[in-house]
Amino acid sequence: MKLTILGCYSATPRTLNNTTSQVLELNNHMFLIDCGEGTQVQLRKHKIKFNRIKHIFISHLHGDHFFGLVGLISTFRLLTRETDLHIYGPKGIKEVVTLQMKLADSWTNYNLIFHELTSDKSELIFEDEKAQVFTIPLNHRVYTNGFLFKEKEGDRKLDIEAVEEANIHVAYYRKLVQGFDVINEDGKTIKNELVTKAGLKPKSYAFCSDTMYKEDIVPIIKNVDALYHESTFLEKHAHLGPKTKHSTAKEAATIAKLANVGTLLLGHYSTRYDGLNAFKEEAQEVFSNVELSEDGKTFDF
Amino acid sequence: MKLTILGCYSATPRTLNNTTSQVLELNNHMFLIDCGEGTQVQLRKHKIKFNRIKHIFISHLHGDHFFGLVGLISTFRLLTRETDLHIYGPKGIKEVVTLQMKLADSWTNYNLIFHELTSDKSELIFEDEKAQVFTIPLNHRVYTNGFLFKEKEGDRKLDIEAVEEANIHVAYYRKLVQGFDVINEDGKTIKNELVTKAGLKPKSYAFCSDTMYKEDIVPIIKNVDALYHESTFLEKHAHLGPKTKHSTAKEAATIAKLANVGTLLLGHYSTRYDGLNAFKEEAQEVFSNVELSEDGKTFDF
Repeated sequence: MKLTILGCYSATPRTLNNTTSQVLELNNHMFLIDCGEGTQVQLRKHKIKFNRIKHIFISHLHGDHFFGLVGLISTFRLLTRETDLHIYGPKGIKEVVTLQMKLADSWTNYNLIFHELTSDKSELIFEDEKAQVFTIPLNHRVYTNGFLFKEKEGDRKLDIEAVEEANIHVAYYRKLVQGFDVINEDGKTIKNELVTKAGLKPKSYAFCSDTMYKEDIVPIIKNVDALYHESTFLEKHAHLGPKTKHSTAKEAATIAKLANVGTLLLGHYSTRYDGLNAFKEEAQEVFSNVELSEDGKTFDF
Repeated sequence: MKLTILGCYSATPRTLNNTTSQVLELNNHMFLIDCGEGTQVQLRKHKIKFNRIKHIFISHLHGDHFFGLVGLISTFRLLTRETDLHIYGPKGIKEVVTLQMKLADSWTNYNLIFHELTSDKSELIFEDEKAQVFTIPLNHRVYTNGFLFKEKEGDRKLDIEAVEEANIHVAYYRKLVQGFDVINEDGKTIKNELVTKAGLKPKSYAFCSDTMYKEDIVPIIKNVDALYHESTFLEKHAHLGPKTKHSTAKEAATIAKLANVGTLLLGHYSTRYDGLNAFKEEAQEVFSNVELSEDGKTFDF
């Protein structure tokens, strides 16, 4: 599971700071999460192949999270993309994208499939044999969801000694890693768990931006390997949290602790601050394993 | 008259190439012309003060000319702008901007005044004591206008020797540069042209993008000091001009020659070409005074 931060600042893009966008590589998927203005250029800079992006998740319709979407869709069209593109986001996202295509008289030559979200409960919005994606209802000024990405249970691992001992033909090995019982060369049924071990633990990642402190999300994100939780403010501006419906670094850390996550990633920093170290320090008063998102940084979990 | 090129490439923004946007400084105005994605970052890079921009002219609603507009408007709001902002562009521009403000539940705290254009004739769309702006109807795949910016006649210059000779009180000097006749110390009317000379010749700039070759625009842009005319293609791709409704460098130069302009500025280059020199060379076969737009370049006319 590899995460690339394309942008992690709040409000407006600046010369060196991009607004929110991330790419999550999970079990061969390339999920694009949020799409602030300039995301397409960030994707180019980080040499992420456009065609590998088949699913885009938009948390909410504030500009710093989606003003780059229509440009990306338009660029895919100009590059004669043929691959389907799925967009998950709040109701209204389809109208605003299609209005711009209509005004430009420029329709995509690939299938553009919108999945508009309206529920205030966590729901499964994507599933295939490799992964699942659930919404994480957040509390912001407009309808907002975070997203929980879960890798599915992978193949089991063969216990080669036990497999040979049990006299199983090599043709059955694939069935074994898939978890099935098989019949050996002597016609006897061999229980799967006697000759295989558990595979790698499936990875999970939760993206929570933008939101004020919301403990209700803890059960949904419990035990994830990595949690990105917005931390717009430092403690000295904690009073702005409820007003603007954003969180502090310390609040993000409290959620991380309650949810027992592996790593906490901070981001969505207000550009009023000079550096980022204070965010990490304040979070670490509550939760030790804290990382700072920074534009262009990658994380392997 | 100073022109700053913020972006001059066609189709999509790339790591080093921005799509169309320019700032024209004319008689103390700062006119923003077109606004591709990333324009707000280009404005920051070139240290152009946001508050000096009061009028934005959008030629047409293709993304490479206007996907940066809503982000710029939104950033102005976040920076608590109070100055009115006028937007001139094709019908539909108001709907697409306001829909995005509605979905974000984020309305501007300054006046946003839309001037939607629908005419296929050149019309005066802005005028004050310093300048005028006219549309230049173009021929593109969607409704498109270029813009003609004309400085107004400036003050006349005093012929100091003649003024003193004519025994005119200094209190009348302001009236003289404004072109009025005045009464001298002896009660005699002095004709303005006897004691003043013509001021600086008013400057003019025509912006023409996107369009296929269209001779009808020649009378509108006749004798301008500088003409920006799109040149998407080189001669080897001239056959794509009528299909995509774009021009070649040579066609741009032909228009420049017919209109007897001062300087021709090329731009809106297709990114299929490696360098820009061929654009200049092909244009110069027809018209000698050719300049290449390049992102970040400024021109003083």
